[in-house]
Amino acid sequence: MRLVLAAGSTRTAGIEGISAAGATRELMAHTPAIDAEIVEYGRPITADLVPVSPTGCPTPAVITRAVREAVGFEFTVIDAGLAAETGAPTVDVDARPGRDVRDPVAVPDAGETVDAAREFGGALPDDELLVGETIPGGTTTALATLRALGEDVGVSSSLPENPTDLKRRVVDDALAESGVEPGDLAGDPVEAIRRVGDPMLATVAGLAIGAAASGTAVTLAGGTQLVAAAALVRHAGVEVPLSLATTSFVADDPNVDLDAAAREFDLDLTITDPGFDRSDHVAMARYVAGEAKEGVGTGGALALADRSDASMAAVRDRIEAVYDRLDVDDISSPTGGASDGA
Amino acid sequence: MRLVLAAGSTRTAGIEGISAAGATRELMAHTPAIDAEIVEYGRPITADLVPVSPTGCPTPAVITRAVREAVGFEFTVIDAGLAAETGAPTVDVDARPGRDVRDPVAVPDAGETVDAAREFGGALPDDELLVGETIPGGTTTALATLRALGEDVGVSSSLPENPTDLKRRVVDDALAESGVEPGDLAGDPVEAIRRVGDPMLATVAGLAIGAAASGTAVTLAGGTQLVAAAALVRHAGVEVPLSLATTSFVADDPNVDLDAAAREFDLDLTITDPGFDRSDHVAMARYVAGEAKEGVGTGGALALADRSDASMAAVRDRIEAVYDRLDVDDISSPTGGASDGA
Repeated sequence: MRLVLAAGSTRTAGIEGISAAGATRELMAHTPAIDAEIVEYGRPITADLVPVSPTGCPTPAVITRAVREAVGFEFTVIDAGLAAETGAPTVDVDARPGRDVRDPVAVPDAGETVDAAREFGGALPDDELLVGETIPGGTTTALATLRALGEDVGVSSSLPENPTDLKRRVVDDALAESGVEPGDLAGDPVEAIRRVGDPMLATVAGLAIGAAASGTAVTLAGGTQLVAAAALVRHAGVEVPLSLATTSFVADDPNVDLDAAAREFDLDLTITDPGFDRSDHVAMARYVAGEAKEGVGTGGALALADRSDASMAAVRDRIEAVYDRLDVDDISSPTGGASDGA
Repeated sequence: MRLVLAAGSTRTAGIEGISAAGATRELMAHTPAIDAEIVEYGRPITADLVPVSPTGCPTPAVITRAVREAVGFEFTVIDAGLAAETGAPTVDVDARPGRDVRDPVAVPDAGETVDAAREFGGALPDDELLVGETIPGGTTTALATLRALGEDVGVSSSLPENPTDLKRRVVDDALAESGVEPGDLAGDPVEAIRRVGDPMLATVAGLAIGAAASGTAVTLAGGTQLVAAAALVRHAGVEVPLSLATTSFVADDPNVDLDAAAREFDLDLTITDPGFDRSDHVAMARYVAGEAKEGVGTGGALALADRSDASMAAVRDRIEAVYDRLDVDDISSPTGGASDGA
């Protein structure tokens, strides 16, 4: 079992109020690079910096790392357009950081990245793959991509109050600036990514198509961003079996109808509740309060833990251990103030 | 426990008769990229190509992968100047392929690579590191570097008959073209690498210095190329404890006095005999005949196996299993003819 993490960036994350994947917008650029290091090494190695939301909710990389320590799995990071250097080893798929989704072209190299990721996915020797993502601002590009494909699916948020009005305005602008009406790019997934997507979507869609075509069982490990990736696979006319594994936090989000999405894109759905309500630890309590919800393959990792011999209580203990090792209070305490979510 | 593999290239490998790390000189450019894939995934993924010597001796990556499957360890590849694309995830240390050692400057970026590798080594969270290499032609650049430092240490070869006369001529030319007399660069390891070394040496020397300085126990996993890396560390004035773990094939090489090297550079020496003489399998028999001897961290991996619960017989069985999975006969049978070694 291997978790492949597509770690990338989009300038869309720089829009005020759009993402909670970092204490500040400046720090957010480092989040995917450091998420990869946390899952790979157990802690950040290029900077003394732990990605936390403005309210102190730690990155879901902590959960995924905890599951890796508890049950063990292979882990491979793809550079899906990182904007900051990472000390984690990465596979190259010709991806560069995404532009602002409101630019006329958001992902100039979408086609090259899809092709390179498809080739890599087809070459991996594994019987089973989990595919996760880390890209701040990614739910907005996911929503824009779904709209371009003509798919009416809501998206989740890393913020407790989803800034849906803001996202809708940004997506409306993105489609207008790219000259795309909703549904215009149905059946043309590469062009949808190129105009209004992000390099993570290019990477995951390509990877899933390539891996599934070679007989690998592919589980998209994440929330609505991975639903958008699934939509892209289906709009490519690819009928392979696909699973989606996500957390109960995404499933409980009223903005999201996972069952409808699963039906629409023929996804085998697994939802895992890690029982964080039984813990007062900050690494878990903020999730119960509706923050973060998903990311860095968490839903897939938790599903793996659920079918392993490890108890969810042991996973929660391990989450505390990973978090405590990070010394979050010493080195990256929140910059103060609650998130306003918009 | 983590094995870090510095995978790089030098145009020195293109000199006729200098290396057996590939069936032909053209294929040799791919050897380090594919070695990394074999240890990472269990088989090549970017090309149906298994590095074998001209006589069919498979790459030592097969042994290292077998030990990884038998006893388990973390594995991280550093791009130490790869000339071909690899599907293995890599860490970036600003290394580029090395030039021909006979060029006036062999490694223009030696200083930058040493610095980046030192920083990476210092940041790794592990208590213990094994550091291995894969770079065809590397024993010649190692010999040139040792000569520039004024160290009188012989080097081994991947060929059964070490082409020592050829190497000596190439090294003489290399020093002359770089304007270096033997011993001129004692105490100036970065300059020695820049003039007559290779990017693997820059990477491993920097990594070892950075890791050891941060309290990590460092074992150089390999033969005389790793002895050259140790010499570079000592010529940087760094007194940290260092171990060298290599195979009995290197220890048995009459061109090499490992005990003298260990004394000279204050290395704690471990030699492991994997008992290949008890097997007729091609993946082991060619080693008994004196080919390959080392590489891709094999000596360190075997030392790890030796101190684990796994028996060496189980490791040998696993080597057969890894080799058989590669379908060497189907996809990369030797191009015919025995190696002439010079």
